[in-house]
Amino acid sequence: MSNTNKRIIMTSHPVGFPQESDFQLEEVPVPEPGDGEFLVKHEYMSLDPYMRGRMNPPSKYAYAEGQTPGSVMLGGAVGRVIASRHPDYAEGDAVATYAGWQEYCLTNGKGYHYYKIDADLAPIEAYLGVLGMPGMTAYFGLLSLCDPKPDETVYVSGAAGAVGSYVGQIAKLKGCKVAGSAGTDDKVAWITGDLGYDAGFNYKKHADFPAKLAETCPDGIDCYFDNVGGAMSDAVFGHANVFARIAICGQISQYNLKAPELGPRILGLILVRQMRVEGFIVTRFLDQYPKAHADMAQWLKEGKLIYRTTVAEGIENAPKAFLGMLNGENTGKQLVRLA
Amino acid sequence: MSNTNKRIIMTSHPVGFPQESDFQLEEVPVPEPGDGEFLVKHEYMSLDPYMRGRMNPPSKYAYAEGQTPGSVMLGGAVGRVIASRHPDYAEGDAVATYAGWQEYCLTNGKGYHYYKIDADLAPIEAYLGVLGMPGMTAYFGLLSLCDPKPDETVYVSGAAGAVGSYVGQIAKLKGCKVAGSAGTDDKVAWITGDLGYDAGFNYKKHADFPAKLAETCPDGIDCYFDNVGGAMSDAVFGHANVFARIAICGQISQYNLKAPELGPRILGLILVRQMRVEGFIVTRFLDQYPKAHADMAQWLKEGKLIYRTTVAEGIENAPKAFLGMLNGENTGKQLVRLA
Repeated sequence: MSNTNKRIIMTSHPVGFPQESDFQLEEVPVPEPGDGEFLVKHEYMSLDPYMRGRMNPPSKYAYAEGQTPGSVMLGGAVGRVIASRHPDYAEGDAVATYAGWQEYCLTNGKGYHYYKIDADLAPIEAYLGVLGMPGMTAYFGLLSLCDPKPDETVYVSGAAGAVGSYVGQIAKLKGCKVAGSAGTDDKVAWITGDLGYDAGFNYKKHADFPAKLAETCPDGIDCYFDNVGGAMSDAVFGHANVFARIAICGQISQYNLKAPELGPRILGLILVRQMRVEGFIVTRFLDQYPKAHADMAQWLKEGKLIYRTTVAEGIENAPKAFLGMLNGENTGKQLVRLA
Repeated sequence: MSNTNKRIIMTSHPVGFPQESDFQLEEVPVPEPGDGEFLVKHEYMSLDPYMRGRMNPPSKYAYAEGQTPGSVMLGGAVGRVIASRHPDYAEGDAVATYAGWQEYCLTNGKGYHYYKIDADLAPIEAYLGVLGMPGMTAYFGLLSLCDPKPDETVYVSGAAGAVGSYVGQIAKLKGCKVAGSAGTDDKVAWITGDLGYDAGFNYKKHADFPAKLAETCPDGIDCYFDNVGGAMSDAVFGHANVFARIAICGQISQYNLKAPELGPRILGLILVRQMRVEGFIVTRFLDQYPKAHADMAQWLKEGKLIYRTTVAEGIENAPKAFLGMLNGENTGKQLVRLA
């Protein structure tokens, strides 16, 4: 094994859209496990939109534990144990960690982000996607918050993303009509083809969102799974049915604004249409993960749930891939494969 | 009995703040009950903020059944049966109707807005307030949607209004810390005095809502009962705690705008604080009214729930009193006593 751990630190809080210069590669020695610790060599690490929020200066209501300049970018990763002085972890075990953008992770395994992976069930990188945080997010946001009924219309923004691509498929499994938006024709072809969405459109080509929603959701919208926010959400609120349920999962259109933008007030619509709008961070459903894992794994096995990954190679390319993901260049789950 | 029924019709859809000229008094003959009908002489009629929404041109998602120019202003009223050819209603029975701004109501008693009143329990006009729509709205909006826990902070906008004045008292009965805003010093003195609110402020005197919320709700806001919207709600969202529950009951600050106004986008806050925001119209809880009536009546009897009414005299004064209520000139429930 190499005795160098390459990792990416955040050098400064970005203002507006992050730059590659907000990140820096550094090399440090690979640590040795002490008593009760084990060392993981990461094979894949995860890039997720929520990480952008974490790059902002700390606030009382941080979306996730904040980064400070000089710290390693945090996040999920998967790999295998290569040295252990921990009774429960043996060399070769596949594990998930939360050590972020680095090649190695030394840990005592405590915390709910650290757990063994069943590599027979799915490739280990699936635990960063369909069986990991994005999959759980799709499952609970849709089923627990939106609670869609058969024949209801479910609309998904960011429909070809890591989370949105599962949301639509789960909604179809539940007997819903499903529509969504994505940012390229290829993505739209994927969601309305392989993923089984009933309708979709390229939001970059069609600026008249209300007209496209009327066309793709002729019966209005009963459930909205929002990954995007901004003008898309404005239009969805305007096309929502009475008693619509709206799960706020992400707001990627807003993360890189230099100053917050104004928009139409929505409380009046929420009132007269008796909507329920709920924001969530998936870890609140932690105690229900086993059921979700079982369902998702079953659907995977039956071929009812498919996924795509966009894979960047090598930790050096993580910042560039992260910025690309914020620009919507990925389809499905964005990963980095480590050397 | 007089053989003239005075009533108020809406002459035109108002644009912006309504004018007295949007209303007109007319006199028509008092009808005679046919078979299965009874005639009610109204003693009080209700003026409510929601009626403003109904004055707008019809829309698919009307807040309440829309008025068309030339039609009698709809709404709740209470009175007594003065003639009956209905087997279940006898002369002298106290009843609630939904015949609106007129002195008499001829009805077959069908529909959930028509029911007998127990005049021994409370004065009949209480069925337009604490035991009527506003009381039910406070009860279900707070207890079913906000679901406040002891020691949580409940904040109420429009705290001295027909609905808000009950909300705060019920929240105190549930062991919460309660704060609210109102538009005059007298109203603030009333809510923090007789009504038992822990804190309150006059929003017309204090434009820095975030500072006043920090002062009146030092532990943040867990539950928000919103009657007002606009800048007040912007500030409350900014001061809300994680897992805050927000019931959208009214948006009186927005009803009379000539064009919708823009505001800060709130979905990002809803996301990171995992808030639940729900709009409601009280009739969705109709099947649970008996329990609510029993609770409210019990609290009334025990002196734990008090109320004020602002009473205008005579149907001729209804439009003026309605406009005054939209301007916040009432304290508690706004009624019109009929001749």
